[in-house]
Amino acid sequence: MKKTIGILGGMGPLATADLFRKIVTLTRADRDNDHIRVYIDSNAAIPDRTAAILSGGPDPVPEMLSALRHLEACGADCIVMPCNTAHYFLSRLQAATDTPVLSMLEATARCCARRYPGERPAVLATRGTLTTGLYDRALAAAGVDFLLPDEEERDTLMYLIYDVVKASRPLTPESDVWRDLLAGLRARGADYFILGCTELPILADTLAVPGPFVDPTAELARAAIRFCGYEAAEK
Amino acid sequence: MKKTIGILGGMGPLATADLFRKIVTLTRADRDNDHIRVYIDSNAAIPDRTAAILSGGPDPVPEMLSALRHLEACGADCIVMPCNTAHYFLSRLQAATDTPVLSMLEATARCCARRYPGERPAVLATRGTLTTGLYDRALAAAGVDFLLPDEEERDTLMYLIYDVVKASRPLTPESDVWRDLLAGLRARGADYFILGCTELPILADTLAVPGPFVDPTAELARAAIRFCGYEAAEK
Repeated sequence: MKKTIGILGGMGPLATADLFRKIVTLTRADRDNDHIRVYIDSNAAIPDRTAAILSGGPDPVPEMLSALRHLEACGADCIVMPCNTAHYFLSRLQAATDTPVLSMLEATARCCARRYPGERPAVLATRGTLTTGLYDRALAAAGVDFLLPDEEERDTLMYLIYDVVKASRPLTPESDVWRDLLAGLRARGADYFILGCTELPILADTLAVPGPFVDPTAELARAAIRFCGYEAAEK
Repeated sequence: MKKTIGILGGMGPLATADLFRKIVTLTRADRDNDHIRVYIDSNAAIPDRTAAILSGGPDPVPEMLSALRHLEACGADCIVMPCNTAHYFLSRLQAATDTPVLSMLEATARCCARRYPGERPAVLATRGTLTTGLYDRALAAAGVDFLLPDEEERDTLMYLIYDVVKASRPLTPESDVWRDLLAGLRARGADYFILGCTELPILADTLAVPGPFVDPTAELARAAIRFCGYEAAEK
C-alpha cells in the first residue's frame, strides 16, 4: 500500500501551495498515477505563530489540531507543516497523534551538513523562529555552525515576510532590499543562506539574487517523498 | 460562517497545485487569516479521464468519489475539479452529493462572452475533452462561436499535455511547438485561445508566447472565490 502525505497548511496559504508544488515536481514520475496522494487542509483560521510566541497572541494549536484531525480522517501516513515558526508547537501536535509529524528543521539541518560541510549558513527567519532558537537547536544537533541576523536585519525580514509576501504585494520592487540584506550577512561571514520562513523561497525563486540558498520547503518535500517510499529529485 | 472550497485533485497533481495557487493569489487578502479555507485531496489513483472516455480505460468515478467523500467529511461547501476532461463525469458526481460541484467549463464560457464579445476562441484541449464536445456545449450555451483544432493540432496538444507537462519534462524546449500551434490556429480564424486542459496554463505561464488566453483554471478559481463570498482579483 502506497503511503500518503497530509499537509497541515494555511501558514501561510501561498507557502502551502509552494510545498505542494515542490512535492509534485520533486517526485520522480512520468504520469499522474506515479504521484503521491496528498491531502491538504489549508486552514486560514490558524492564528499567527509569531504573535502567539512573542506577544501573547491566541494559541494556534486548537486550529492546527482541527486541520490535523481532517488529515488523519483522510488517512494521511505522515504530516508536514509548511511553516518554520509552527515547529515551535510540533511536540504538542505530536503528543496528540500517532501519525508522524516530519520536521522541516531537521530535514534542513541534515541538508546543510551534507551539502555544505564546514561552511556557515545565515538563518533567515521570522522573529518568532529566531527568538525561540528553533534553528539553533536543529543546526547544532547536526553539527552546523551558523550566523543569526542582527536587529535591523530582523526588521527587514519581518517586512519582507509580512508586508510583502503574506500581503500578496509585488515582489520585484523588493529586489534591492533583498540583495542588500544578503550582502550584509555575507560581509559578516555567511557562506550561504537558510530560507527559514516558508515565504522566503517564494521571494528567492522570483528575485534572481544569488545565494546559495537552502530551501527548507524543498527539503521538507524531499523528506516527505522519501518517507512515502518514492524517489526524490535533487533539482 | 465563512464558506470553504474542496479541490477534487490529482488530475494531474501539478494542475491541482496550480488551481490552489490561483485561488490564493486571486483572493483579495492582506494576511493569512483573510484567506479561504481550502481542502484538497490530490488523488493520484484516479484513472486517466481521456482513456476512460475514448478507449475503454477504467472508470475514474469510484476514485473521484473517494476524494469527494474526504472533502465532504472535511466540510467543504463547494467542490472544484482542476481537470477539464473530468467534467464529462460531473453529472455522475453531482448526483452523488448535495455539495455543489462548480463547473470550470461554464465559468470559462461566461468569461469568454464577457471579456471578448463577438470574438472567436480556439479550444485547446485533450482528445477526450474535444471528442465529447464538453466545451462546444458550454460555449454554445453562452452564445460564443468557436474553432476546434484539426487532427494534427490535436496530436500536438496530446504531445504537449501528456509527454511534456504531465511527464514533468522541461517546458522551455517546447516553445517553438507551442508558438507554431497557436500561429496555425490564428491563421484559421482564432482571435484568442481557451487553455482548455489544466496542464496548458502551466505551459502558457512559462512560455512567453502571446495569446490572448482565457485560463479556465483562473476562471474556476474566481468562481470558487466568489461562491465563498470573497472578492476575486481580475489579475
